Amino acid sequence: MSLREVDLDPTSAAEVRACAHAMADAARAVILPLFRMGLASDNKDADGFDPVTEADRAAEQAMRAVLADRRPLDGIFGEEFGISDGTSGLQWVLDPIDGTRGFISGTPTWGVLISLRDARGPVYGIIDQPYIGERFEGGFGQADMVGPLGARGLATSRVEDLAEATILTTFPEVGSAREGAAFHAVARGCKLTRYGMDCYGYALLAAGQVELVIEAGLSAYDIQAPISVVQAAGGIVTNWGGGPAHEGGQVIAAANASIHAQALEILARH
Amino acid sequence: MSLREVDLDPTSAAEVRACAHAMADAARAVILPLFRMGLASDNKDADGFDPVTEADRAAEQAMRAVLADRRPLDGIFGEEFGISDGTSGLQWVLDPIDGTRGFISGTPTWGVLISLRDARGPVYGIIDQPYIGERFEGGFGQADMVGPLGARGLATSRVEDLAEATILTTFPEVGSAREGAAFHAVARGCKLTRYGMDCYGYALLAAGQVELVIEAGLSAYDIQAPISVVQAAGGIVTNWGGGPAHEGGQVIAAANASIHAQALEILARH
Repeated sequence: MSLREVDLDPTSAAEVRACAHAMADAARAVILPLFRMGLASDNKDADGFDPVTEADRAAEQAMRAVLADRRPLDGIFGEEFGISDGTSGLQWVLDPIDGTRGFISGTPTWGVLISLRDARGPVYGIIDQPYIGERFEGGFGQADMVGPLGARGLATSRVEDLAEATILTTFPEVGSAREGAAFHAVARGCKLTRYGMDCYGYALLAAGQVELVIEAGLSAYDIQAPISVVQAAGGIVTNWGGGPAHEGGQVIAAANASIHAQALEILARH
Repeated sequence: MSLREVDLDPTSAAEVRACAHAMADAARAVILPLFRMGLASDNKDADGFDPVTEADRAAEQAMRAVLADRRPLDGIFGEEFGISDGTSGLQWVLDPIDGTRGFISGTPTWGVLISLRDARGPVYGIIDQPYIGERFEGGFGQADMVGPLGARGLATSRVEDLAEATILTTFPEVGSAREGAAFHAVARGCKLTRYGMDCYGYALLAAGQVELVIEAGLSAYDIQAPISVVQAAGGIVTNWGGGPAHEGGQVIAAANASIHAQALEILARH
Protein backbone atom coordinates (compact mmCIF):
# COMPACT_ATOMS: atom_id res chain seq x y z
CA MET A 1 0.00 0.00 0.00
CA SER A 2 1.37 3.35 -1.08
CA LEU A 3 -0.63 5.54 1.34
CA ARG A 4 1.16 8.33 3.23
CA GLU A 5 0.08 11.05 5.60
CA VAL A 6 -0.91 13.92 3.29
CA ASP A 7 -1.95 17.37 4.52
CA LEU A 8 -3.92 19.14 1.82
CA ASP A 9 -3.77 22.94 1.51
CA PRO A 10 -7.07 24.76 0.92
CA THR A 11 -6.56 24.85 -2.83
CA SER A 12 -5.94 21.12 -3.00
CA ALA A 13 -8.90 20.46 -0.71
CA ALA A 14 -11.13 22.50 -3.03
CA GLU A 15 -9.86 20.47 -5.98
CA VAL A 16 -10.62 17.25 -4.16
CA ARG A 17 -14.14 18.41 -3.36
CA ALA A 18 -14.78 19.52 -6.94
CA CYS A 19 -13.49 16.19 -8.22
CA ALA A 20 -15.68 14.24 -5.77
CA HIS A 21 -18.78 16.16 -6.85
CA ALA A 22 -17.93 15.52 -10.49
CA MET A 23 -17.61 11.81 -9.68
CA ALA A 24 -20.97 11.80 -7.90
CA ASP A 25 -22.56 13.60 -10.85
CA ALA A 26 -21.08 11.05 -13.25
CA ALA A 27 -22.34 8.15 -11.13
CA ARG A 28 -25.83 9.63 -10.98
CA ALA A 29 -25.96 10.00 -14.73
CA VAL A 30 -25.29 6.32 -15.37
CA ILE A 31 -27.23 4.88 -12.42
CA LEU A 32 -30.53 6.74 -12.66
CA PRO A 33 -31.59 5.43 -16.06
CA LEU A 34 -31.14 1.90 -14.64
CA PHE A 35 -32.94 2.40 -11.31
CA ARG A 36 -36.31 0.62 -11.17
CA MET A 37 -35.83 -0.74 -14.67
CA GLY A 38 -36.12 -4.42 -13.74
CA LEU A 39 -32.42 -5.14 -14.20
CA ALA A 40 -31.18 -8.67 -14.16
CA SER A 41 -28.75 -9.03 -11.29
CA ASP A 42 -26.06 -11.63 -11.13
CA ASN A 43 -25.06 -13.05 -7.82
CA LYS A 44 -21.55 -12.46 -6.50
CA ASP A 45 -22.02 -14.58 -3.41
CA ALA A 46 -24.23 -17.60 -3.96
CA ASP A 47 -25.19 -18.10 -0.32
CA GLY A 48 -25.18 -14.45 0.78
CA PHE A 49 -27.37 -12.85 -1.90
CA ASP A 50 -25.15 -9.90 -2.80
CA PRO A 51 -26.46 -8.81 -6.19
CA VAL A 52 -24.33 -6.73 -8.47
CA THR A 53 -26.09 -4.73 -11.07
CA GLU A 54 -24.97 -3.30 -14.31
CA ALA A 55 -25.47 0.09 -12.65
CA ASP A 56 -22.91 -0.75 -9.99
CA ARG A 57 -20.21 -1.47 -12.53
CA ALA A 58 -21.07 1.39 -14.86
CA ALA A 59 -21.03 3.87 -11.98
CA GLU A 60 -17.59 2.79 -10.78
CA GLN A 61 -16.27 3.02 -14.34
CA ALA A 62 -17.73 6.51 -14.67
CA MET A 63 -16.10 7.63 -11.42
CA ARG A 64 -12.76 6.09 -12.41
CA ALA A 65 -12.91 8.00 -15.69
CA VAL A 66 -13.30 11.28 -13.78
CA LEU A 67 -10.30 10.40 -11.62
CA ALA A 68 -8.19 9.44 -14.63
CA ASP A 69 -8.91 12.87 -16.06
CA ARG A 70 -8.66 15.04 -12.96
CA ARG A 71 -6.52 13.23 -10.38
CA PRO A 72 -4.46 10.55 -12.16
CA LEU A 73 -1.87 10.34 -9.35
CA ASP A 74 -4.31 9.19 -6.64
CA GLY A 75 -4.87 5.53 -5.88
CA ILE A 76 -8.33 3.92 -6.11
CA PHE A 77 -10.02 1.15 -4.13
CA GLY A 78 -13.39 0.37 -5.64
CA GLU A 79 -15.89 -2.29 -4.61
CA GLU A 80 -16.30 -3.54 -8.16
CA PHE A 81 -12.86 -3.20 -9.76
CA GLY A 82 -10.51 -3.40 -6.78
CA ILE A 83 -7.26 -1.52 -6.21
CA SER A 84 -5.40 0.75 -8.61
CA ASP A 85 -2.17 2.05 -7.17
CA GLY A 86 -1.31 5.75 -7.13
CA THR A 87 1.70 7.88 -6.23
CA SER A 88 0.12 10.82 -4.35
CA GLY A 89 -0.20 8.97 -1.05
CA LEU A 90 -3.99 9.39 -1.28
CA GLN A 91 -6.58 6.76 -2.16
CA TRP A 92 -10.20 7.13 -3.30
CA VAL A 93 -12.46 4.53 -1.74
CA LEU A 94 -15.58 3.92 -3.85
CA ASP A 95 -18.78 1.98 -3.38
CA PRO A 96 -20.76 2.81 -6.51
CA ILE A 97 -24.03 1.43 -5.12
CA ASP A 98 -24.04 0.76 -1.40
CA GLY A 99 -27.24 -1.06 -0.58
CA THR A 100 -27.79 -3.17 -3.68
CA ARG A 101 -30.70 -5.04 -2.05
CA GLY A 102 -32.39 -1.68 -1.49
CA PHE A 103 -31.61 -0.70 -5.08
CA ILE A 104 -33.22 -3.87 -6.44
CA SER A 105 -36.25 -3.37 -4.18
CA GLY A 106 -36.65 0.19 -5.46
CA THR A 107 -36.14 1.83 -2.06
CA PRO A 108 -34.31 5.17 -2.15
CA THR A 109 -32.00 4.06 0.66
CA TRP A 110 -28.96 3.02 -1.38
CA GLY A 111 -26.23 5.51 -2.13
CA VAL A 112 -23.08 6.26 -4.00
CA LEU A 113 -20.21 6.36 -1.49
CA ILE A 114 -17.10 8.33 -2.37
CA SER A 115 -14.29 9.00 0.05
CA LEU A 116 -10.66 10.04 0.08
CA ARG A 117 -8.23 8.61 2.59
CA ASP A 118 -4.57 8.92 3.49
CA ALA A 119 -2.50 6.67 5.72
CA ARG A 120 -4.43 7.82 8.79
CA GLY A 121 -7.90 7.07 7.45
CA PRO A 122 -10.70 8.87 5.59
CA VAL A 123 -10.43 12.66 5.33
CA TYR A 124 -13.39 13.50 3.10
CA GLY A 125 -16.56 11.76 1.98
CA ILE A 126 -19.82 11.99 0.04
CA ILE A 127 -23.02 10.00 0.51
CA ASP A 128 -25.13 10.61 -2.59
CA GLN A 129 -28.74 9.48 -3.10
CA PRO A 130 -29.36 10.06 -6.80
CA TYR A 131 -33.08 9.31 -6.95
CA ILE A 132 -34.02 11.77 -4.21
CA GLY A 133 -31.36 14.12 -5.48
CA GLU A 134 -29.68 14.40 -2.10
CA ARG A 135 -25.97 14.73 -1.44
CA PHE A 136 -24.31 14.73 1.98
CA GLU A 137 -20.63 15.65 2.30
CA GLY A 138 -18.15 16.01 5.11
CA GLY A 139 -14.49 16.85 5.53
CA PHE A 140 -11.99 19.73 5.32
CA GLY A 141 -13.96 21.55 8.03
CA GLN A 142 -17.31 21.33 6.22
CA ALA A 143 -20.45 19.24 6.77
CA ASP A 144 -23.23 20.05 4.34
CA MET A 145 -26.11 18.61 2.40
CA VAL A 146 -28.13 19.63 -0.60
CA GLY A 147 -31.47 18.08 -1.45
CA PRO A 148 -35.06 18.69 -2.49
CA LEU A 149 -35.46 21.48 0.07
CA GLY A 150 -32.16 23.18 -0.78
CA ALA A 151 -28.80 23.35 1.00
CA ARG A 152 -28.16 23.22 4.72
CA GLY A 153 -25.41 22.44 7.19
CA LEU A 154 -25.24 19.07 8.89
CA ALA A 155 -25.11 18.71 12.68
CA THR A 156 -25.73 15.59 14.74
CA SER A 157 -28.44 15.33 17.40
CA ARG A 158 -27.88 16.73 20.89
CA VAL A 159 -30.03 14.05 22.49
CA GLU A 160 -27.69 12.57 25.11
CA ASP A 161 -29.92 10.00 26.82
CA LEU A 162 -29.98 6.59 25.14
CA ALA A 163 -33.57 6.14 26.31
CA GLU A 164 -34.56 9.03 24.04
CA ALA A 165 -32.52 7.82 21.06
CA THR A 166 -33.58 6.41 17.70
CA ILE A 167 -31.37 3.57 16.47
CA LEU A 168 -31.05 2.29 12.91
CA THR A 169 -29.63 -0.79 11.30
CA THR A 170 -30.27 -2.31 7.89
CA PHE A 171 -31.73 -5.70 8.81
CA PRO A 172 -32.76 -7.18 12.17
CA GLU A 173 -30.29 -10.09 12.12
CA VAL A 174 -27.45 -7.50 11.93
CA GLY A 175 -24.73 -10.16 11.58
CA SER A 176 -23.91 -13.31 13.55
CA ALA A 177 -26.30 -14.46 16.29
CA ARG A 178 -23.99 -12.86 18.86
CA GLU A 179 -23.84 -9.59 16.93
CA GLY A 180 -27.62 -9.59 16.60
CA ALA A 181 -28.04 -10.12 20.34
CA ALA A 182 -25.65 -7.25 21.12
CA PHE A 183 -27.46 -4.91 18.73
CA HIS A 184 -30.86 -5.75 20.19
CA ALA A 185 -29.56 -5.22 23.73
CA VAL A 186 -28.71 -1.64 22.72
CA ALA A 187 -31.97 -1.25 20.80
CA ARG A 188 -34.01 -2.29 23.85
CA GLY A 189 -32.49 0.70 25.64
CA CYS A 190 -33.54 3.11 22.87
CA LYS A 191 -36.84 4.84 22.23
CA LEU A 192 -37.27 3.72 18.63
CA THR A 193 -35.64 1.14 16.35
CA ARG A 194 -35.95 1.35 12.58
CA TYR A 195 -34.61 -0.88 9.82
CA GLY A 196 -33.89 -0.86 6.14
CA MET A 197 -32.01 2.38 5.54
CA ASP A 198 -28.69 1.09 4.11
CA CYS A 199 -26.09 3.89 3.94
CA TYR A 200 -28.84 6.48 4.10
CA GLY A 201 -28.95 5.81 7.85
CA TYR A 202 -25.56 7.49 8.27
CA ALA A 203 -26.81 10.51 6.34
CA LEU A 204 -29.80 10.74 8.69
CA LEU A 205 -27.42 10.54 11.65
CA ALA A 206 -25.31 13.37 10.24
CA ALA A 207 -28.49 15.39 9.65
CA GLY A 208 -29.47 15.11 13.31
CA GLN A 209 -32.53 12.88 12.70
CA VAL A 210 -31.38 9.74 14.54
CA GLU A 211 -28.82 9.10 17.27
CA LEU A 212 -27.32 5.71 16.47
CA VAL A 213 -26.46 3.43 13.55
CA ILE A 214 -25.01 0.04 14.47
CA GLU A 215 -24.01 -2.52 11.86
CA ALA A 216 -21.71 -5.49 11.46
CA GLY A 217 -19.93 -7.21 8.61
CA LEU A 218 -19.10 -4.01 6.75
CA SER A 219 -16.29 -3.60 4.26
CA ALA A 220 -13.92 -0.64 4.20
CA TYR A 221 -15.71 0.84 1.18
CA ASP A 222 -19.06 0.68 3.03
CA ILE A 223 -17.99 2.89 5.89
CA GLN A 224 -15.24 5.37 4.92
CA ALA A 225 -17.56 7.94 3.32
CA PRO A 226 -20.07 7.65 6.21
CA ILE A 227 -17.23 8.15 8.71
CA SER A 228 -16.21 11.38 7.02
CA VAL A 229 -19.74 12.75 6.83
CA VAL A 230 -20.80 11.75 10.36
CA GLN A 231 -17.59 12.96 12.02
CA ALA A 232 -17.67 16.28 10.17
CA ALA A 233 -21.23 16.76 11.48
CA GLY A 234 -20.10 16.21 15.07
CA GLY A 235 -20.67 12.48 15.47
CA ILE A 236 -18.42 9.62 16.47
CA VAL A 237 -17.77 6.45 14.45
CA THR A 238 -15.78 3.56 15.88
CA ASN A 239 -15.83 -0.20 15.92
CA TRP A 240 -17.70 -1.95 18.73
CA GLY A 241 -14.56 -1.89 20.84
CA GLY A 242 -14.14 1.87 20.51
CA GLY A 243 -11.26 1.68 18.03
CA PRO A 244 -10.97 2.83 14.41
CA ALA A 245 -13.78 1.62 12.12
CA HIS A 246 -12.42 2.56 8.73
CA GLU A 247 -11.48 -0.97 7.77
CA GLY A 248 -15.10 -2.05 8.31
CA GLY A 249 -16.38 -4.93 10.44
CA GLN A 250 -18.57 -4.04 13.42
CA VAL A 251 -19.40 -0.34 13.30
CA ILE A 252 -21.15 2.03 15.69
CA ALA A 253 -21.92 5.60 14.62
CA ALA A 254 -23.28 7.88 17.35
CA ALA A 255 -24.55 11.43 17.44
CA ASN A 256 -22.38 12.44 20.38
CA ALA A 257 -20.00 11.14 23.03
CA SER A 258 -22.72 10.43 25.58
CA ILE A 259 -24.80 8.22 23.28
CA HIS A 260 -21.63 6.55 22.02
CA ALA A 261 -20.46 5.70 25.56
CA GLN A 262 -23.85 4.33 26.65
CA ALA A 263 -24.17 2.12 23.58
CA LEU A 264 -20.55 0.95 23.71
CA GLU A 265 -20.99 -0.10 27.33
CA ILE A 266 -23.95 -2.33 26.39
CA LEU A 267 -22.12 -3.79 23.37
CA ALA A 268 -19.14 -4.60 25.61
CA ARG A 269 -21.36 -6.70 27.89
CA HIS A 270 -22.45 -8.92 24.97
CA MET B 1 -72.88 5.87 7.87
CA SER B 2 -74.33 7.64 4.84
CA LEU B 3 -72.33 5.79 2.20
CA ARG B 4 -74.09 4.52 -0.92
CA GLU B 5 -73.01 2.80 -4.10
CA VAL B 6 -72.06 5.67 -6.41
CA ASP B 7 -71.02 5.25 -10.04
CA LEU B 8 -69.10 8.30 -11.22
CA ASP B 9 -69.26 9.40 -14.85
CA PRO B 10 -65.96 10.39 -16.52
CA THR B 11 -66.49 14.09 -15.79
CA SER B 12 -67.10 13.42 -12.11
CA ALA B 13 -64.12 11.07 -11.97
CA ALA B 14 -61.93 13.79 -13.47
CA GLU B 15 -63.21 16.23 -10.85
CA VAL B 16 -62.41 13.75 -8.10
CA ARG B 17 -58.88 13.25 -9.44
CA ALA B 18 -58.28 16.99 -9.73
CA CYS B 19 -59.57 17.52 -6.21
CA ALA B 20 -57.35 14.73 -4.84
CA HIS B 21 -54.27 16.21 -6.50
CA ALA B 22 -55.15 19.63 -5.07
CA MET B 23 -55.43 18.03 -1.63
CA ALA B 24 -52.06 16.33 -2.02
CA ASP B 25 -50.51 19.60 -3.15
CA ALA B 26 -51.99 21.39 -0.14
CA ALA B 27 -50.69 18.71 2.24
CA ARG B 28 -47.21 18.91 0.74
CA ALA B 29 -47.10 22.66 1.20
CA VAL B 30 -47.75 22.49 4.92
CA ILE B 31 -45.79 19.32 5.69
CA LEU B 32 -42.51 19.96 3.91
CA PRO B 33 -41.45 23.03 5.94
CA LEU B 34 -41.88 20.87 9.06
CA PHE B 35 -40.05 17.74 7.84
CA ARG B 36 -36.66 17.25 9.52
CA MET B 37 -37.15 20.39 11.60
CA GLY B 38 -36.85 18.72 15.01
CA LEU B 39 -40.55 18.99 15.77
CA ALA B 40 -41.76 18.21 19.23
CA SER B 41 -44.16 15.30 18.97
CA ASP B 42 -46.83 14.61 21.49
CA ASN B 43 -47.76 11.07 22.23
CA LYS B 44 -51.28 9.87 21.45
CA ASP B 45 -50.77 6.46 22.91
CA ALA B 46 -48.49 6.40 25.94
CA ASP B 47 -47.57 2.73 25.66
CA GLY B 48 -47.64 2.41 21.88
CA PHE B 49 -45.44 5.32 20.80
CA ASP B 50 -47.69 6.76 18.11
CA PRO B 51 -46.42 10.31 17.73
CA VAL B 52 -48.60 12.94 16.19
CA THR B 53 -46.87 15.93 14.78
CA GLU B 54 -48.02 19.38 14.09
CA ALA B 55 -47.54 18.52 10.43
CA ASP B 56 -50.08 15.72 10.67
CA ARG B 57 -52.80 18.01 11.95
CA ALA B 58 -51.96 20.91 9.65
CA ALA B 59 -51.99 18.62 6.61
CA GLU B 60 -55.42 17.19 7.41
CA GLN B 61 -56.77 20.69 7.95
CA ALA B 62 -55.32 21.78 4.61
CA MET B 63 -56.95 18.84 2.84
CA ARG B 64 -60.29 19.44 4.56
CA ALA B 65 -60.16 23.06 3.40
CA VAL B 66 -59.78 21.90 -0.21
CA LEU B 67 -62.77 19.57 0.19
CA ALA B 68 -64.88 22.30 1.79
CA ASP B 69 -64.19 24.43 -1.24
CA ARG B 70 -64.43 21.87 -4.05
CA ARG B 71 -66.54 18.95 -2.82
CA PRO B 72 -68.58 20.07 0.17
CA LEU B 73 -71.16 17.28 -0.20
CA ASP B 74 -68.69 14.41 0.33
CA GLY B 75 -68.12 12.88 3.75
CA ILE B 76 -64.67 12.77 5.35
CA PHE B 77 -62.95 10.27 7.62
CA GLY B 78 -59.57 11.61 8.70
CA GLU B 79 -57.03 10.05 11.05
CA GLU B 80 -56.66 13.26 13.03
CA PHE B 81 -60.11 14.84 13.05
CA GLY B 82 -62.44 11.89 12.63
CA ILE B 83 -65.67 11.70 10.68
CA SER B 84 -67.58 14.52 8.98
CA ASP B 85 -70.82 13.37 7.42
CA GLY B 86 -71.68 14.12 3.81
CA THR B 87 -74.68 13.67 1.56
CA SER B 88 -73.12 12.49 -1.73
CA GLY B 89 -72.78 8.87 -0.64
CA LEU B 90 -68.97 9.20 -1.02
CA GLN B 91 -66.40 9.52 1.72
CA TRP B 92 -62.78 10.74 1.59
CA VAL B 93 -60.49 8.68 3.80
CA LEU B 94 -57.39 10.63 4.81
CA ASP B 95 -54.17 9.79 6.60
CA PRO B 96 -52.22 13.04 6.46
CA ILE B 97 -48.94 11.42 7.50
CA ASP B 98 -48.89 7.65 7.36
CA GLY B 99 -45.65 6.50 8.98
CA THR B 100 -45.11 9.08 11.69
CA ARG B 101 -42.18 7.12 13.14
CA GLY B 102 -40.52 7.30 9.75
CA PHE B 103 -41.33 10.99 9.54
CA ILE B 104 -39.70 11.65 12.91
CA SER B 105 -36.66 9.58 11.93
CA GLY B 106 -36.29 11.60 8.73
CA THR B 107 -36.79 8.63 6.41
CA PRO B 108 -38.63 9.41 3.16
CA THR B 109 -40.92 6.41 3.64
CA TRP B 110 -43.98 8.15 5.12
CA GLY B 111 -46.72 9.40 2.86
CA VAL B 112 -49.90 11.36 2.54
CA LEU B 113 -52.75 8.91 1.91
CA ILE B 114 -55.88 10.15 0.19
CA SER B 115 -58.68 7.92 -0.98
CA LEU B 116 -62.30 8.07 -1.97
CA ARG B 117 -64.74 5.30 -1.13
CA ASP B 118 -68.37 4.44 -1.60
CA ALA B 119 -70.41 1.75 0.14
CA ARG B 120 -68.46 -0.98 -1.67
CA GLY B 121 -64.99 0.21 -0.64
CA PRO B 122 -62.24 2.45 -2.02
CA VAL B 123 -62.53 3.52 -5.66
CA TYR B 124 -59.58 5.89 -6.02
CA GLY B 125 -56.40 6.64 -4.09
CA ILE B 126 -53.16 8.61 -3.91
CA ILE B 127 -49.95 7.75 -2.08
CA ASP B 128 -47.86 10.93 -2.03
CA GLN B 129 -44.26 11.21 -0.81
CA PRO B 130 -43.66 14.94 -0.59
CA TYR B 131 -39.91 14.96 0.15
CA ILE B 132 -38.98 12.83 -2.85
CA GLY B 133 -41.67 14.55 -4.85
CA GLU B 134 -43.33 11.29 -5.85
CA ARG B 135 -47.03 10.70 -6.31
CA PHE B 136 -48.68 7.33 -7.03
CA GLU B 137 -52.36 7.19 -7.98
CA GLY B 138 -54.82 4.52 -8.92
CA GLY B 139 -58.48 4.28 -9.81
CA PHE B 140 -60.99 5.06 -12.57
CA GLY B 141 -59.00 2.83 -14.92
CA GLN B 142 -55.68 4.56 -14.35
CA ALA B 143 -52.53 3.61 -12.45
CA ASP B 144 -49.76 6.18 -12.71
CA MET B 145 -46.89 7.79 -10.90
CA VAL B 146 -44.90 10.96 -11.27
CA GLY B 147 -41.56 11.48 -9.58
CA PRO B 148 -37.96 12.65 -9.97
CA LEU B 149 -37.59 10.77 -13.26
CA GLY B 150 -40.91 11.94 -14.72
CA ALA B 151 -44.25 10.22 -15.24
CA ARG B 152 -44.85 6.55 -15.93
CA GLY B 153 -47.57 3.95 -15.67
CA LEU B 154 -47.72 1.53 -12.76
CA ALA B 155 -47.82 -2.24 -13.21
CA THR B 156 -47.17 -4.90 -10.62
CA SER B 157 -44.44 -7.56 -10.95
CA ARG B 158 -44.98 -10.67 -13.06
CA VAL B 159 -42.80 -12.78 -10.78
CA GLU B 160 -45.11 -15.67 -9.89
CA ASP B 161 -42.86 -17.89 -7.76
CA LEU B 162 -42.81 -16.97 -4.07
CA ALA B 163 -39.20 -18.18 -3.88
CA GLU B 164 -38.25 -15.34 -6.23
CA ALA B 165 -40.29 -12.69 -4.41
CA THR B 166 -39.26 -9.71 -2.32
CA ILE B 167 -41.46 -9.13 0.72
CA LEU B 168 -41.78 -5.93 2.74
CA THR B 169 -43.20 -5.03 6.10
CA THR B 170 -42.57 -2.03 8.31
CA PHE B 171 -41.10 -3.63 11.42
CA PRO B 172 -40.03 -7.23 12.14
CA GLU B 173 -42.47 -7.82 15.01
CA VAL B 174 -45.32 -7.09 12.53
CA GLY B 175 -48.02 -7.36 15.23
CA SER B 176 -48.82 -9.97 17.87
CA ALA B 177 -46.42 -12.87 18.40
CA ARG B 178 -48.71 -15.06 16.29
CA GLU B 179 -48.90 -12.47 13.51
CA GLY B 180 -45.12 -12.11 13.58
CA ALA B 181 -44.67 -15.88 13.28
CA ALA B 182 -47.07 -16.04 10.34
CA PHE B 183 -45.28 -13.19 8.55
CA HIS B 184 -41.87 -14.77 9.04
CA ALA B 185 -43.16 -18.12 7.76
CA VAL B 186 -44.04 -16.39 4.50
CA ALA B 187 -40.80 -14.39 4.52
CA ARG B 188 -38.72 -17.57 4.86
CA GLY B 189 -40.24 -18.69 1.58
CA CYS B 190 -39.24 -15.46 -0.19
CA LYS B 191 -35.96 -14.45 -1.76
CA LEU B 192 -35.54 -11.16 0.10
CA THR B 193 -37.17 -9.50 3.11
CA ARG B 194 -36.90 -5.76 3.71
CA TYR B 195 -38.23 -3.57 6.48
CA GLY B 196 -38.99 0.05 7.27
CA MET B 197 -40.89 1.29 4.23
CA ASP B 198 -44.20 2.38 5.82
CA CYS B 199 -46.83 3.12 3.14
CA TYR B 200 -44.07 3.54 0.55
CA GLY B 201 -43.95 -0.26 0.42
CA TYR B 202 -47.34 -0.35 -1.31
CA ALA B 203 -46.11 2.21 -3.84
CA LEU B 204 -43.12 -0.02 -4.60
CA LEU B 205 -45.47 -2.98 -5.02
CA ALA B 206 -47.62 -0.99 -7.47
CA ALA B 207 -44.47 0.04 -9.32
CA GLY B 208 -43.45 -3.58 -9.83
CA GLN B 209 -40.39 -3.46 -7.55
CA VAL B 210 -41.50 -5.93 -4.89
CA GLU B 211 -44.02 -8.76 -4.85
CA LEU B 212 -45.52 -8.71 -1.34
CA VAL B 213 -46.38 -6.37 1.51
CA ILE B 214 -47.81 -7.99 4.63
CA GLU B 215 -48.81 -6.00 7.69
CA ALA B 216 -51.09 -6.26 10.70
CA GLY B 217 -52.87 -3.85 13.01
CA LEU B 218 -53.74 -1.38 10.26
CA SER B 219 -56.57 1.13 10.41
CA ALA B 220 -58.95 1.79 7.54
CA TYR B 221 -57.20 5.08 6.74
CA ASP B 222 -53.83 3.25 6.48
CA ILE B 223 -54.90 0.93 3.71
CA GLN B 224 -57.67 2.38 1.53
CA ALA B 225 -55.39 4.51 -0.65
CA PRO B 226 -52.84 1.67 -1.00
CA ILE B 227 -55.66 -0.70 -2.01
CA SER B 228 -56.72 1.64 -4.81
CA VAL B 229 -53.20 2.14 -6.12
CA VAL B 230 -52.12 -1.51 -5.91
CA GLN B 231 -55.32 -2.90 -7.43
CA ALA B 232 -55.26 -0.37 -10.27
CA ALA B 233 -51.69 -1.51 -11.03
CA GLY B 234 -52.80 -5.16 -11.27
CA GLY B 235 -52.19 -6.34 -7.71
CA ILE B 236 -54.44 -7.96 -5.13
CA VAL B 237 -55.08 -6.66 -1.60
CA THR B 238 -57.04 -8.72 0.94
CA ASN B 239 -56.97 -9.55 4.60
CA TRP B 240 -55.05 -12.64 5.69
CA GLY B 241 -58.18 -14.73 5.21
CA GLY B 242 -58.63 -13.60 1.60
CA GLY B 243 -61.53 -11.24 2.35
CA PRO B 244 -61.86 -7.47 1.99
CA ALA B 245 -59.06 -5.47 3.64
CA HIS B 246 -60.45 -1.97 3.45
CA GLU B 247 -61.36 -1.79 7.10
CA GLY B 248 -57.71 -2.50 8.03
CA GLY B 249 -56.42 -5.18 10.39
CA GLN B 250 -54.22 -7.91 8.86
CA VAL B 251 -53.41 -6.99 5.27
CA ILE B 252 -51.67 -8.79 2.44
CA ALA B 253 -50.92 -6.98 -0.81
CA ALA B 254 -49.56 -9.14 -3.62
CA ALA B 255 -48.30 -8.45 -7.12
CA ASN B 256 -50.45 -11.14 -8.72
CA ALA B 257 -52.81 -14.02 -8.01
CA SER B 258 -50.06 -16.64 -7.89
CA ILE B 259 -47.99 -14.85 -5.25
CA HIS B 260 -51.17 -14.01 -3.33
CA ALA B 261 -52.30 -17.64 -3.24
CA GLN B 262 -48.90 -18.98 -2.16
CA ALA B 263 -48.59 -16.45 0.66
CA LEU B 264 -52.19 -16.87 1.80
CA GLU B 265 -51.72 -20.61 2.04
CA ILE B 266 -48.76 -20.16 4.40
CA LEU B 267 -50.59 -17.55 6.48
CA ALA B 268 -53.57 -19.92 6.82
CA ARG B 269 -51.31 -22.56 8.37
CA HIS B 270 -50.24 -20.17 11.17
